[in-house]
Amino acid sequence: MLSRRTIVALSLLAVLPGVAIAQAPPADPLPSWNDGPARHAIIDFVTRVTTDGSPDFVPPAERIATFDNDGTLWTEQPVYFQLAFAFDRIKALARERPDWRTKQPFKALLDHDMHRVAAAGEKGLLEIMAVSHTGISTEEFSKVVLDWTANARHPRYDRPYTELVFQPMLELMSFLRANGFKTFVVSGGGIEFMRPWVERVYGIPPEQVVGSSGAVKLQTSGNGKPELMKLAKVEFIDDGPGKAAGINRFIGRRPIFAFGNSDGDLQMLQWTMAGPGARFAGLVHHTDAEREYAYDRDSKVGKLDKALDEATAKRWTVVDMKHDWKVIFPPAK
Amino acid sequence: MLSRRTIVALSLLAVLPGVAIAQAPPADPLPSWNDGPARHAIIDFVTRVTTDGSPDFVPPAERIATFDNDGTLWTEQPVYFQLAFAFDRIKALARERPDWRTKQPFKALLDHDMHRVAAAGEKGLLEIMAVSHTGISTEEFSKVVLDWTANARHPRYDRPYTELVFQPMLELMSFLRANGFKTFVVSGGGIEFMRPWVERVYGIPPEQVVGSSGAVKLQTSGNGKPELMKLAKVEFIDDGPGKAAGINRFIGRRPIFAFGNSDGDLQMLQWTMAGPGARFAGLVHHTDAEREYAYDRDSKVGKLDKALDEATAKRWTVVDMKHDWKVIFPPAK
Repeated sequence: MLSRRTIVALSLLAVLPGVAIAQAPPADPLPSWNDGPARHAIIDFVTRVTTDGSPDFVPPAERIATFDNDGTLWTEQPVYFQLAFAFDRIKALARERPDWRTKQPFKALLDHDMHRVAAAGEKGLLEIMAVSHTGISTEEFSKVVLDWTANARHPRYDRPYTELVFQPMLELMSFLRANGFKTFVVSGGGIEFMRPWVERVYGIPPEQVVGSSGAVKLQTSGNGKPELMKLAKVEFIDDGPGKAAGINRFIGRRPIFAFGNSDGDLQMLQWTMAGPGARFAGLVHHTDAEREYAYDRDSKVGKLDKALDEATAKRWTVVDMKHDWKVIFPPAK
Repeated sequence: MLSRRTIVALSLLAVLPGVAIAQAPPADPLPSWNDGPARHAIIDFVTRVTTDGSPDFVPPAERIATFDNDGTLWTEQPVYFQLAFAFDRIKALARERPDWRTKQPFKALLDHDMHRVAAAGEKGLLEIMAVSHTGISTEEFSKVVLDWTANARHPRYDRPYTELVFQPMLELMSFLRANGFKTFVVSGGGIEFMRPWVERVYGIPPEQVVGSSGAVKLQTSGNGKPELMKLAKVEFIDDGPGKAAGINRFIGRRPIFAFGNSDGDLQMLQWTMAGPGARFAGLVHHTDAEREYAYDRDSKVGKLDKALDEATAKRWTVVDMKHDWKVIFPPAK
């Protein structure tokens, strides 16, 4: 038990920040980042915009930070995780759809013939996305997503997909929040696919998620309550130029800090950097085939080409995953 | 200057909430609300959902409160304020549009012939809205709105429109925020018309505003920077069933507290009340012709008919403006 004297000392410490008391050095806010230019640039930027009296000071309300999701906050190989979810959902639904045994692209998917699935092209993919993501209420869909995140396993790592998030990026988001930033996900992925788990995994509440979305229809459910039915109609694609529009629509404030990893994030980064005052643009460059994946200009998933050129020309921060990160994923649970 | 003894006492008070110390009674959080059923219902609800151990306790992250804007947070008579803005903008733009002197509905508007403007019907109104709200960048539009809120005056009160907000509702929103709620505007009005001033007037940041919106196009401005051009294409109408869809799209969490004033808010209130646990639905009933306006079932603006019936049947809280509110507006500045 603490003595009264200790309590008084502690409480003085709490309310009188000016009092000089010998204390342990502050813990490293980015323990998984190697000492290098990326880490330096992050800490330097945060220090400048949060130091009272600094010419670069930004009031807390305007400290908006946006993060792409696929490839920036979690892995996106061998396929976008939402596509893996769609495939798994088709397999689960197939029990009640015997007609799919003979109908493409479902037959190919159920036969694990991924070449044939790919051959179905965009049309086939859209059909898979529509069937796996619509025709149920938003509430039911949320449960389906949570069930998948709890039970599905990534083929290479044999871990839940929500454990394949980048530990250094988790630390970066915590560091920003501890410095008064509001962190947002701005993803090309589906908004309703992300919201059920982002709070637990990223510490980001659902209302701070921007993403692609489908239309919904308000109707009365069997028990007489209103429900929102997910329709097979795309409403908004939050990718490329859509990311600037999505930030404007959902946040209504220009970020001062943005992180992406592919050409689909270029306009978000440009939009962020076009405002006045101090600004930060970052790219995660997947350079680590051993611990994760290595890909950029020629990749079908997360192609990083134009954005890499622009980042180089404009001296944005490019994270070299292999050299900048001590670990990739959090420890297995 | 405070003595060391006082500082210690104060710090103990700050860190040891269990310590009983004689103190002044807490200030009334709702000083503009008369003692009555509406005020009681609000305080009772907030106490129940915020008291640890209460069967109705709701964790802070889920304390989402949504407020309609027109007629709920500010006056909406004799016309929606956004329409007054549109009219003023047409008049300002007319200097460079001599053709409008002979073209309806612009001619009628410039002649102050409001009957003739009304006769142009929905088509004429949409034309006025399009011309006054589009063809400029989001950034320029924000400046136009701020200029209008600073200079335009309401015809009856001769005050800036942003001063015609309801003092009791400002207190209610502050009270909720002080109790861990996150407050959102969910309005049929334009999202870009509200965002420039909501933070100053309501204490609500722009990212917590849901509203109707038009499409935008990302393009490069004259100085080489990206800008979002406002297009004459409606993207989303946040009214009626759209309010449930808008809450789902922008917030992604069901509110536990919602306030409206018209049939356009009915689905928001139903959506709020359909969730589990303790919930609150409120309506502002405009009953005060002397201090503000009195209207409900037969009004063209802010019609309150079906929602009033449902509120009565389901015992939602209906604020009787005349009897429940000591003052309507904040003191003039």
